[in-house]
Amino acid sequence: MTSLPLSDALSAVQRTTPLVHCITNFVAMNSTANCLLAVGASPAMLHSIEEVAEFTRLAGALSINIGTPSPHWAEGMQLAARTANESNTPWVLDPVAVGATYYRQTLSQTLLAFKPSVIRGNTSEIMTLSGLTHAGRGVDATASTDEAREAAINLAMQQGCVVAMTGVQDFITDGTQHWRLSGGHALMPRVTTLGCALSATVAAFVAASPEAPLNATLAALTSFAIAGSRAGQQAAGPGSFQVALLDALYQLTPTDVRQFTGLEEG
Amino acid sequence: MTSLPLSDALSAVQRTTPLVHCITNFVAMNSTANCLLAVGASPAMLHSIEEVAEFTRLAGALSINIGTPSPHWAEGMQLAARTANESNTPWVLDPVAVGATYYRQTLSQTLLAFKPSVIRGNTSEIMTLSGLTHAGRGVDATASTDEAREAAINLAMQQGCVVAMTGVQDFITDGTQHWRLSGGHALMPRVTTLGCALSATVAAFVAASPEAPLNATLAALTSFAIAGSRAGQQAAGPGSFQVALLDALYQLTPTDVRQFTGLEEG
Amino acid sequence: MTSLPLSDALSAVQRTTPLVHCITNFVAMNSTANCLLAVGASPAMLHSIEEVAEFTRLAGALSINIGTPSPHWAEGMQLAARTANESNTPWVLDPVAVGATYYRQTLSQTLLAFKPSVIRGNTSEIMTLSGLTHAGRGVDATASTDEAREAAINLAMQQGCVVAMTGVQDFITDGTQHWRLSGGHALMPRVTTLGCALSATVAAFVAASPEAPLNATLAALTSFAIAGSRAGQQAAGPGSFQVALLDALYQLTPTDVRQFTGLEEG
Repeated sequence: MTSLPLSDALSAVQRTTPLVHCITNFVAMNSTANCLLAVGASPAMLHSIEEVAEFTRLAGALSINIGTPSPHWAEGMQLAARTANESNTPWVLDPVAVGATYYRQTLSQTLLAFKPSVIRGNTSEIMTLSGLTHAGRGVDATASTDEAREAAINLAMQQGCVVAMTGVQDFITDGTQHWRLSGGHALMPRVTTLGCALSATVAAFVAASPEAPLNATLAALTSFAIAGSRAGQQAAGPGSFQVALLDALYQLTPTDVRQFTGLEEG
Repeated sequence: MTSLPLSDALSAVQRTTPLVHCITNFVAMNSTANCLLAVGASPAMLHSIEEVAEFTRLAGALSINIGTPSPHWAEGMQLAARTANESNTPWVLDPVAVGATYYRQTLSQTLLAFKPSVIRGNTSEIMTLSGLTHAGRGVDATASTDEAREAAINLAMQQGCVVAMTGVQDFITDGTQHWRLSGGHALMPRVTTLGCALSATVAAFVAASPEAPLNATLAALTSFAIAGSRAGQQAAGPGSFQVALLDALYQLTPTDVRQFTGLEEG
Repeated sequence: MTSLPLSDALSAVQRTTPLVHCITNFVAMNSTANCLLAVGASPAMLHSIEEVAEFTRLAGALSINIGTPSPHWAEGMQLAARTANESNTPWVLDPVAVGATYYRQTLSQTLLAFKPSVIRGNTSEIMTLSGLTHAGRGVDATASTDEAREAAINLAMQQGCVVAMTGVQDFITDGTQHWRLSGGHALMPRVTTLGCALSATVAAFVAASPEAPLNATLAALTSFAIAGSRAGQQAAGPGSFQVALLDALYQLTPTDVRQFTGLEEG
């Protein structure tokens, strides 16, 4: 069992309005800020080396998403991650499409050196990252669930962090404890950047409960799973889904989290 | 009393479709453009020194928001503000989080030199800006309403511009006339970049009524207050609020503005 | 008559989930990705010279929109367009506001050298582009429908591509065959970046049916016209219109496309 009740992790976000410093991609900027505000956190998007170090020190957590990288942004990401590492600010890495280009792989590797608290990605991204840190392992597009699970555990152990691998079923591990999470809705992949927004939401939860990153991560994923499931009941398509998701995140209560049955150990 | 009726200021926007050149942050890009279109203006977002000077001269007004600054963008902002100043194009400054980093303070100070027509910010931002221009005054997080009010008046007098300080209650001044505005809805701070969109909307109103920047500003804030209040009556959360706000801005009539009772002198 | 039925072009998108590499403006990022997902395609936004060449080769089509240009982005656009041209990847050019600044005209001219498969723009943009490639023709703000039509045909013949000129009535030509398309809704111009999203949607359709770029373009425009018309029946303003449009794109079937009556040859 977990030490911090997941419902308390949501309460902590709603009570403390944690400031989350986001360096994210251009597509996800607005939806990420709105998800953070809906769940009760305070988002701040800024990326330039002229100011990131000063700001990361003020924030409760940092969230880095490499979705639309370029050299100036990569420098900002690295400086922010370094600052977070030095100031013990928890931070989350979202390695969007890391397998797609060499540039993303190099950038991700430099960021991993600053020890993220949590890595949130899909199966392919987690396997690529795991392969970057474990010589001799490549990405297999036809990877079985067992291989993906093993990659996530290896990455968590190697990095000493929480890994949240999301998909139809999510797998969350800190290398020692492992969890599977079911929920959400089939429309979620038809709305852009929900995964990006989820990563920033994980950062908000870790900011509010920095002593328990695994349970904070589980609580953030649980919140999205409940809100996604409710939004799906009302939605006629991805447009109305996105609207309903923000409303559902806003309406979410600790009791909702306590009653969630989609989480299983193992 | 004001010389230009506020309802006429809205009519002028709806009748003339003013072109508003926006240099804004990445989070606010889309919502700002949509608010401007809903209220009847024509938005154009462009920022690069390769073209801003040419474009600012075509526009009815310029709106600069420093939310996600970097050197290339800061250069574009400065060139656009300089061009607006030289060509008597009205322009609005939104000094997002100016108190958060040294970089934003320096950038804001260089922009103030080009004499904005209107500054729109929250209490903390207006007090920081006022402190930058009045030696010996710092920002006091526990500032009383009276101190904030005094800062806004000082900034307006120093800059020779309109200052719109928005929050639960708004305070608007040109240094001589002062107004308080109540309205809107508690959900507004739970939707990202509504303040940024409001600043650009002020620019649209000033573009349509450049001879009366104070009343144009009051009309823009009144429009948002009415639309926000109506959106709040229909919304189940921040997702549906954002949708309803755009609809309400689109449906707004001069009669609605004439019947608004939330504005008081003093 | 067309060789590829337009309903088959929609089926091909829904069946193959084409990967569309988008280099677009900051305002359009999110709405473009959501339109592509709604219609059944897979969007990827990335722009930096460090990775575009590698990625364009993976994509089914490339979509370039010059809405918020700057030097680093212009380099990325040029490298991506060159790569598309070399690797026979179809690509779509959206020359946003090309007439507004000298910078956009120069950039557009360099991009035209890499032979877009489709150009999608409004009347003014198409006439400007046509003027750039036909010495002695300028833009006439009071251009008649006939002049605009002639400019589109000239541009299509000169470039050897499809030209889709959209407005209250759309005109589509490959220089030989010409089509007029009516549909959509009066609220469409009140929602930002729908034209940008349409250009990327054209890219998705061409990716799925690369052998028939004219009919793929017609099918994409037909899809938007049907979805826009349906969204307009439910919307109270531009906020609810945008939501309903995404739902309608998602719900669209090949039968809907087959029953569309708004397309006429000539």
